[in-house]
This record gives sequence, structure tokens and C-alpha cells, in this order.
Amino acid sequence: MPRSRSRSTKLPLALGLDFGTESVRALLVTLDGVEHGSAAERYKHGQITDKLPGTRTKLPPDFAFQHPQDWLDASGRAVKRALKQARADGEQVIGVGVDFTSCTMLPTLRDGTPLCTFQSFRKHMFAWPKLWKHHGAKSQTLRFNELARQRKEPWLDRYGGIIGLEWFFPKVLETLEEAPAVYDAADVWLEAGDWYVWQLVGSEAKDLPRSTCQAGYKAMWNSDTGYPSPGFFKALHPKLEHVVRDKMPGRLLAPGEKAGELTPRMARKLGLKAGTPVSAAVIDAHAGVPGAGVSEAGTFVMVMGTSSCHMLNNKEERLVPGVAGVVEGGILPGYFGYETGQAAVGDAFDWLRRTVGEKSFKALDRKARDLPPGAEGVLCLDWMNGCRTPLMDGSLKGAFLGLTLNHGPEHMYRALLEASAFGVRWIIDLLEEGGVPVRKLVATGGLPHHNPLLVQIYADVMGRQITVHPSTQGPALGAAILGVLAAGKSASGFASPGAAIKAMAEADPKRKDRKPIIVKPDRKATRIYTEQYIRYRQWADTLAAAPG
Amino acid sequence: MPRSRSRSTKLPLALGLDFGTESVRALLVTLDGVEHGSAAERYKHGQITDKLPGTRTKLPPDFAFQHPQDWLDASGRAVKRALKQARADGEQVIGVGVDFTSCTMLPTLRDGTPLCTFQSFRKHMFAWPKLWKHHGAKSQTLRFNELARQRKEPWLDRYGGIIGLEWFFPKVLETLEEAPAVYDAADVWLEAGDWYVWQLVGSEAKDLPRSTCQAGYKAMWNSDTGYPSPGFFKALHPKLEHVVRDKMPGRLLAPGEKAGELTPRMARKLGLKAGTPVSAAVIDAHAGVPGAGVSEAGTFVMVMGTSSCHMLNNKEERLVPGVAGVVEGGILPGYFGYETGQAAVGDAFDWLRRTVGEKSFKALDRKARDLPPGAEGVLCLDWMNGCRTPLMDGSLKGAFLGLTLNHGPEHMYRALLEASAFGVRWIIDLLEEGGVPVRKLVATGGLPHHNPLLVQIYADVMGRQITVHPSTQGPALGAAILGVLAAGKSASGFASPGAAIKAMAEADPKRKDRKPIIVKPDRKATRIYTEQYIRYRQWADTLAAAPG
Repeated sequence: MPRSRSRSTKLPLALGLDFGTESVRALLVTLDGVEHGSAAERYKHGQITDKLPGTRTKLPPDFAFQHPQDWLDASGRAVKRALKQARADGEQVIGVGVDFTSCTMLPTLRDGTPLCTFQSFRKHMFAWPKLWKHHGAKSQTLRFNELARQRKEPWLDRYGGIIGLEWFFPKVLETLEEAPAVYDAADVWLEAGDWYVWQLVGSEAKDLPRSTCQAGYKAMWNSDTGYPSPGFFKALHPKLEHVVRDKMPGRLLAPGEKAGELTPRMARKLGLKAGTPVSAAVIDAHAGVPGAGVSEAGTFVMVMGTSSCHMLNNKEERLVPGVAGVVEGGILPGYFGYETGQAAVGDAFDWLRRTVGEKSFKALDRKARDLPPGAEGVLCLDWMNGCRTPLMDGSLKGAFLGLTLNHGPEHMYRALLEASAFGVRWIIDLLEEGGVPVRKLVATGGLPHHNPLLVQIYADVMGRQITVHPSTQGPALGAAILGVLAAGKSASGFASPGAAIKAMAEADPKRKDRKPIIVKPDRKATRIYTEQYIRYRQWADTLAAAPG
Repeated sequence: MPRSRSRSTKLPLALGLDFGTESVRALLVTLDGVEHGSAAERYKHGQITDKLPGTRTKLPPDFAFQHPQDWLDASGRAVKRALKQARADGEQVIGVGVDFTSCTMLPTLRDGTPLCTFQSFRKHMFAWPKLWKHHGAKSQTLRFNELARQRKEPWLDRYGGIIGLEWFFPKVLETLEEAPAVYDAADVWLEAGDWYVWQLVGSEAKDLPRSTCQAGYKAMWNSDTGYPSPGFFKALHPKLEHVVRDKMPGRLLAPGEKAGELTPRMARKLGLKAGTPVSAAVIDAHAGVPGAGVSEAGTFVMVMGTSSCHMLNNKEERLVPGVAGVVEGGILPGYFGYETGQAAVGDAFDWLRRTVGEKSFKALDRKARDLPPGAEGVLCLDWMNGCRTPLMDGSLKGAFLGLTLNHGPEHMYRALLEASAFGVRWIIDLLEEGGVPVRKLVATGGLPHHNPLLVQIYADVMGRQITVHPSTQGPALGAAILGVLAAGKSASGFASPGAAIKAMAEADPKRKDRKPIIVKPDRKATRIYTEQYIRYRQWADTLAAAPG
């Protein structure tokens, strides 16, 4: 979203904090959604995938951690830089919203101190915050699903019949089994987004604000029945029976509900005013829905980045096999929020670029664009980080098929983009077959802006028009909107969440800073892709059924 | 094979001419097999895969031609350079042997002039010599096999029940159907190796010397029954009924039999003496058997280069499904010669190197060597140029499976080397299950000398010792031995082919220029590979059965 004012503003501002895999972004907008300041700061330790900080402990493949101090330090720097850019005062900020990758989670003491910050635990891998993409809980996830199926757990159907490798309780169980001392020492297990909001508002552990979004999508929580039962947890592992009662204190709040007010200490760290309202956290992708100005049912919002999350609101609850989560009010109040996703999108493209020895995407993009739909016979399964929707199997692997000596790296690259698009088509087919209509496609996140070829391939494969939302910071804008909702009607003047979303983020061809990019499908390409898609589905079935 | 004498020799010499895909090599040896001169010359036009020379005619993918003038010019230059290097006189050469890629074939007029050299035909793709790897005859090969099965043609079993895309008659039929004018204009269809020998000896068309090796392995010829019957050809295409009678004149000679004597014109071009005996041609790979000093049954000779050919002699004829060809006396007199092969070996490694953006194999080799057997889960099917043995299907494609974001190009490279080894293990399993014992493995060709990692992986996968023959010019040495046989006992003094092979090429740890490299299997790696091999066979079955 282009900044449309460069002079300083004295108007009320909302702050959105968007915590990603490598960095955090702070976005300051006025209540018309106009951007005044924006700054991203990288985490000092980045993704921790090789060695634990300050140790020689080599990590297994598939392990990925983050450093909690990075979240505090990088957000402090980012907010101050954004304020400076806006030439605004911290006092102008009326509300703070926080979105975070999920399920990124950690164990802490009762006062919120992360276990990994203690000398005695810093060499324990399992004391560190596990990043969403940490894939250490393979065997635990298998048993979790097996047991849930055996016991016919009622929550299983809401998650498409299968629980993901990246979710909350498999990660807890992994630590319990691999490092019981760490599990015993943990007073609190929680999502990183909730932890950060807890730091902002400084409540006691029993009142720590937990997001219904994270709990609903990643920890099988439901407003009617809560978390899975102690009986289930006991059957999984005797020591897990009372994990919810004993190690998951707090109160559950919907995104946009007020979690509390900024403590003086955190206000200083961020350069804001103590007492500023803070919203409960939201999953980064889910913040992309308000951030893309979407407040209606039937619009499939694709938040595309390192990985992709797709969100869709629907009036009814339909249990669609393979759909990762259906949570009432999980995205917007009054709707059933459907979440689906792809585990490797930008990450996979970047992996391919590195693998073929290219420094940038420039040459690959140019050559791949010149190839016909179907990449001259090369077919890819983009499961290099497992398959999220619909197979929910993090242990699946990527593949390239149809290779000949006449193919080059550009064929593999184009096939990978096409695989990503086939994956989305599969998801949409599944939703519609399950009675959840998809009326409109909106793309948001950084990737659609950097990769127009990808968006064109998506439109061609789907045979549908795609609206690319102009904001490249959808989640951050969505988080800012949640901050406005937390500030309340008296401070913001918005009568409803829909009114705030419309005013602050809806795409608008007449407004220069809100002009969407409309990508139309090429009918001829769609016909070719429909054949290739059938081939893709056959191979997906074959590879998913294979022993390894 | 290292040169062991640098001073000039006045002893009798044999000349071997080894025609490859990119270049021809001339090798001069004395009758003890010691090398005195060796020179390779590239073909001016190389492989013609992009455009026809002097035209803008863009070739389809999978098409590959060569220029017949290149064979004459490059061989002339190579022989003269080799003589110079040996400080020898052309008069010393007692016999000339020729090996050639196969099935590389062309249409000519009755006087031997290639059709492609005429102004009126040079823009016709199908008038050009088709290189062995030309894959234009896909549909023709399908029909060829279908008809042969329907008619229960007696020759089909000798070729493992299936005829290859790269063989002689599918290539003839392709021209007949795609360019009937070219087919009509052709007086003679023949193998390039036979064409070159014909040029050397200058006989009339009716006497042109055709090799039983090429005819037996690539044109379904058999000493008892000849070529397939006119009835079969007629059923395939009415105009093909009398192709053998009308367009394939000549007499059939075994490699080592004298095809004729050098004409004065060709003697001048090569710097040799007119009247020098010339052997009938041999397929390049098959020349590798005498070239590796092998004259006994049960030794599996792997001639490894751009592609691989494996030859094995056996006392009995066994029809093994999938084995490309069994020809009585096709390799050595008195044995049934079994030929198997892999369509892309060095070619595939080179393709991968280019695809991952590496200028040399150095870094790939080093990193792949450090990986454990099994390439950390990456599995490759090396069918980037189709699968020769055992599936005989040029339309099959390559694949990589098991990819994750943690894999790099070195994983793909190692998986490709392992796939090549699994392919050989499959072939050996098949031969032994079919009652053809394999007692010893010998590797020859350029590749085993340049790629020790590959040979180690082969030994580990097979669980057998591999003897790498010291000559890097096995086929050229084999061709020279055939030249000696053509010269006859009176000129050479050898009483039998076996005696000549033993004296001129047998590996000998005691002789400095004949010292073999012995590569022993690592038993632990073999156990790991045995599991991975089962996985490879399962995927091979899956991919071979897939619709595309």
C-alpha cells in the first residue's frame, strides 16, 4: 500500500505488529487505513535451525526455533522507526494489535520467563520456542491422530479428520517425551503471540490473554466444549492428563477483544503511552482477512508468503475432510471461519532458486514465463515441507516427475509454481464439494506483488479472476484494525468490526492507495491446466499412498 | 591406458577408429596392445539438435542428427595426428577396425552419397543421419511392438519382448511416414558404421559390408532367419513390404571379418596405405568387450560414458524378458552375446550439473561423497532419456522423489548416481533370474576413471567387486583388435580372436600399462542400499505403470 501522506500527522493512529518467521513489522495507520509509518526489523537470531545460540548443540533436520528476546527487541526497534517515519508521537496510538506465526509456542515459568533464557535450560533444545515449521513431533502426531480416531473424539471432524504435525499439543507431547525435565519445569505452555501480548499487558498467569484464534485453529479448542478432555490426554500419556488445568492458565479472548493495557515498561520499550489498549493476538494469516478488507462470506483470502494460509468465512458449519480447521468466530464474529494452507510456497520457490544455483529469481522468472502451461511435461509435487491441506501430513515429501535431458531449471521452477496453483485448486474443489461456496479469490501477502507470473498461473489454473489486494502488509494492517477494535467504539467511532474493516482496508479502484490488481484467467491456458491438474491429482494420490 | 613408449616405433600397428556422439578417436597400438598414438577430433557440427546446418529449420525436442562429412573429415584429422604422435608411417598399419554409435543410421543413393548432402534434401529433417539418441519414432515404435506381439513374431523374444525407440526399423518407418519423398528417394538405408566402412573399402552397393553386430542388435537380424519377414513389414506399412530386398543391399560380416581394403582415395584422406585390410564395423559398446581384454563367458562388461552399454557372453541362449538383445556371435564368436543398457549415464550427470548451475563436478562430487548411502531420503529415477533395459521404453521420464527444503543439489546428484547403480543391479538380477550367470564385473569407458564415487556406489549397491579396466579407450582398442583380426593370422600371428584379445588388452596387475583398479564393496553400505533398492524398484514399477 503506497503511503499517501509524507507530512507528519496529528490524527489518531493504530499500530499493527506482524511477527513473521524472520522479522517483525510495525505498521502505523490512521483510521482511514492510510499508512504513515512502516518498519521491519529482522530477528537477531533469525530462524534457529543449525545450532542453539551460544552452544555447539547441532540441531536435527526439520527442527526450527526462535529466540523470545528477539521478539521484544526487534518490535521495540520497529515501532520506534515507524513512529519516526510517521513523524508522529507515541501518544497518538489509540490501540495495538498483534499477529504472530502459529503454532509457534514455548514453555515459561509462572511469571512468563521463557525456560530457554535460564542458564540451566539454554542447552536443552526442547526448552526453546518451537517455530511453526518445527517438524520434530512426527511420531507424536501419528499417535495423537491414531488415538483420536480410536476414541472417536468429537473435535476431530472439525479439523478435517486429522491433526497437524505443526500444532500445539503434538509439540507439547514431543517435549514431554523427549525432555521430561523441561516439561516438568514448565509452569505455562502457550502460543508465542499470546506470550507477547502477555508481556505487553503484564497480567498474572491465571489471567493471561489467550487468543481463541490460536486455541481454535491449533489447539482443538472450541467455545462450547473447550480443549480435548483429560481422559483423552491421559490415554495419550499419563503425565499429560491435566496439562490444560495445570500448565495452560489464562482466559480466552477473541481477536479484537481487549487483552489489557500497555505496562509502563513495555510502553517505554515501544515508545508508546502506558495504558494503551491492546487486542488479543491473532494468527498472522488470519489477520490477513481484515487486512485485505474482507468482511463477507464466500471470499477466499490467500495470504501468500513463506507458506500460504487461506481463509474463508461461511454462514454454516460444514465438516470438510482435509480442511485444517473450522472455528466459529475464528476469523470474524458471526461466521464459521475455514482455514486451509500450504506448507511451503515462497520457501519452496527460494529452495529451488538456491538448488539451481541462482542468486535471484530474475532469469528463472523470465525463462519460466516463456514456457507453455504444463512446463513441457515436468510435474511437481510441492511437498518439500509436507502437505498441509488437504492431506495434513508433514512427513510427505516433494517430487519432480517427467524430467528429460531437454529440461532446464526454468522447467522445474515453472512446474513448482504450477504445483502450488494445483494445490489451491484442489483445496477449492474440496470446499465446494463439501458445500462451502467460494465466490471470489483475493490474494494478499508479499508474494503476489513480487511474483506476477505466480498470480497469473493461479488465475489460469483456477479459471477464475484473482484480486490482488494492494497492501503488501495485509496481516500488519489487519492487526492494526484489531488494535482499533480493542480501543472500542468511543475511541475509534466504528460501530462494528465490518465498518472498521471496510473503512480501513477494503480494496477500492477509485482510491489511489487501495487500487487492486485484477488478474484474469486465460481460457486457453485453463483448458490445458485442467488436464495437467488431473495428472497432478493422480500423482498426489500415488505419492501420498507410497510407503516412503 | 598410459603410453609406455615415447620414441618412434617401426613395429606393425593396428588402427582403431572409435566414432562417438561428439567426436571420433583414432588409436594406434602395437600388437602387444601398447599405445603409440591417440587423437580425438570433434565433429564440426557436433550433435545436431537445434537447427539443421545452414537452415533456420528448428528441430523438435528429442531430435538428434549428425553430419556425414564430419565423420570423414574428423577421422582424417585424427588418424594423421595419431600417426604424428606415434612418429610412425601409415605403411606400418596392418589393419583398420571401426566402431560406431548405434543405431545411428542414414539414407543414401546407390553410390553411397548421403541424401542430406543434396541441395534438394538438406532442408528435409528426415534426410539427415539420425543419431542413436534421436527419439522421433515414438508412435512408430508403439505400432511396431503392437504388431509384433499380435503376430507373435519369432524374433521378438530375442529382444526381451520389446523393440526400442532408438532402433533401425522404427527410424526407417518414421521417415516413410513423416517424409515419404525422402523414403522414396533413398536407395540404401544403413547404419553409419557400415556407411563409413563402405566409404573406406569402396565396394558396389550390392556388396556393401554390413555388420552382423549392428544388424543383430538393432535390426532384428539373425543368422538363421535373416531380418523380419516381408509379411510383417507389409502389415506395418504397405510400402515397407520389400524394404530389405529393395533398400538394404549388401553382405553381412561379423566384426573382425575383412570387409575389404582401403581405397586409394580414403588411404590418402587418412594417411594410410591403399589396400590395408579393414574389418566390418562393430557397435562402439560391443568393441569395449575385446577392448577390456574380456574373451570369456560370465564377465559383465559395463561400457560407461554418455550412456552405458553392458555386454555379457554366455554359452547358452536364454530369453530374458527385458534384455535388449541376444545375438549369436554378436560380441565374440562361439558365444551368445547379451546386450543391456542405460540410456542416460554421463549425459544425465552432466544435465544435473548444468541444471544446478555448476561449472564443474568438483563441488558436487565432494559434497555428495560426504552424504550417507541413500542421499538422506532423496530417490531418483534416472530415465531422463527413457529407460533402455529392462523396460525398453524411450518415452519414460526421470524423477526425483523424497525432496525436502533441507536437501541441496548434492542430494540430487548422489541420488542420481545411486539410481544409475540401482538400474544396473536390476539388470543383473534379471539376467541371473533368467539363468544367465554373472560372475565378474568389469567397468570400462571414460566415466569410471573420472568418477570414482560412481564406481564405489556401483560396487556398494551391487555388493560385488568391480574391476576398472585401465584403458580409458576400450572401444578404440577393441576396434584396433578387430583390425588385427581382419588382417589375418599371416599378418598378425594370432591363432584365435581370444589370443589377440588376451595379448592386446587383458588387464594385468604386473604390467604397468595394464594395471586394473579394484573397487571393493562396503558391506554396511550394501545393506542400506538393499533397502533403498527395494524402494527404487517399487517406484520404478509405479512410474512405469503411470499414464504419463
